[in-house]
Amino acid sequence: MKDRIASLPRGLYVIIDPEVAAGLPEEEIARQAIEGGARLVQLRDKQREKGLQLAVARRLKEVCAQAGVPLIINDHLDLALAAEADGVHVGQKDLPVSVVRRLMPEGIIGCSTNNVEEALRAQADGASYVSVGRLFPTDSKADTRPATLETLRAVKEAVRIPVAAIGGINEENIDAVLAAGADLVAVIGAVVAAPDVREAARRLADRINEHWGRVAS
Amino acid sequence: MKDRIASLPRGLYVIIDPEVAAGLPEEEIARQAIEGGARLVQLRDKQREKGLQLAVARRLKEVCAQAGVPLIINDHLDLALAAEADGVHVGQKDLPVSVVRRLMPEGIIGCSTNNVEEALRAQADGASYVSVGRLFPTDSKADTRPATLETLRAVKEAVRIPVAAIGGINEENIDAVLAAGADLVAVIGAVVAAPDVREAARRLADRINEHWGRVAS
Repeated sequence: MKDRIASLPRGLYVIIDPEVAAGLPEEEIARQAIEGGARLVQLRDKQREKGLQLAVARRLKEVCAQAGVPLIINDHLDLALAAEADGVHVGQKDLPVSVVRRLMPEGIIGCSTNNVEEALRAQADGASYVSVGRLFPTDSKADTRPATLETLRAVKEAVRIPVAAIGGINEENIDAVLAAGADLVAVIGAVVAAPDVREAARRLADRINEHWGRVAS
Repeated sequence: MKDRIASLPRGLYVIIDPEVAAGLPEEEIARQAIEGGARLVQLRDKQREKGLQLAVARRLKEVCAQAGVPLIINDHLDLALAAEADGVHVGQKDLPVSVVRRLMPEGIIGCSTNNVEEALRAQADGASYVSVGRLFPTDSKADTRPATLETLRAVKEAVRIPVAAIGGINEENIDAVLAAGADLVAVIGAVVAAPDVREAARRLADRINEHWGRVAS
């Protein structure tokens, strides 16, 4: 348990959703995002059949593994196992964290939460991190529940595991998210739909590092 | 390998798709279908989130296990593992049979095929059975490729593993399907959308038993 949590990085968390991405192959997005400073990568594909996603996930795994960056698969535990990804991210309507933990004992398991109660339950069930969102309006994902920076702050105070902030985060609001205690800053459109993925990731990663530099000093 | 294939029954294979079902809870459909003579049950749910399907799959597993009937989950290997189902059925665009076999070494693994080449590949990759279809027009499943009774016959001659016939099978055409060599007769609408599920299953199961009685005598 300790090792698993220790191995989860902090910083920029880039979620690659092919529907949001602006045309580059997924592994090229991952490569550029990692070069820009992403510390965690997620594949989220709600559309394609899993047989078609498997090749993508394997290519992503190769790029991520070379850089020492964990690859998380959204929802599909079977795809994660098949591609030997490092973990799975589940929502409140996906397979429960406790079940995923049993089937992937060593994996990084993230769980979308919207309040302290859900976050504490996810932690008790074996989550490696919780995400809190959506914090700001976004086009990247439909059917999201709103959350506030106050929610983020409250969850951060309530749980021991790292907290990822998600939902419409960009250069305008990232400082507020960091000030509220986010360990991971999850972005989709701000990086994967950017005209220059590497540069977009770098600007956000720099802001995260600046914030933590200020906190540490 | 021998045990796994030996444990796969022959006969009526009822696929429960909540979109096709006429209002009864899934486990009640399974119960009645089994009472009517179903020897294999599949849950196919392309719509609901897996967290919502898990409770359904667990109830189905209980009903099936009490009757000694294996429960197969369509597509979602993770759901199958979570619900401790007996196997998984995959299509040509789902996770490959070889990958599913590795992740579920003891499971019943079925694979949708449309020709001899796909059937032989599925067998080589570790499938427990192949299905061949769709044989007749059906409203139960969109995006299917047509197959003929000749295809079914050719696949049956080519593979060692059991062959399931699927696609629009009903009382009018079941004899032709059996004559073409089907080991399993897979039905959706003909049973799960019937006004009397038990009776619909019984009539089809009787026809199967009559056919095999004739063949044996």
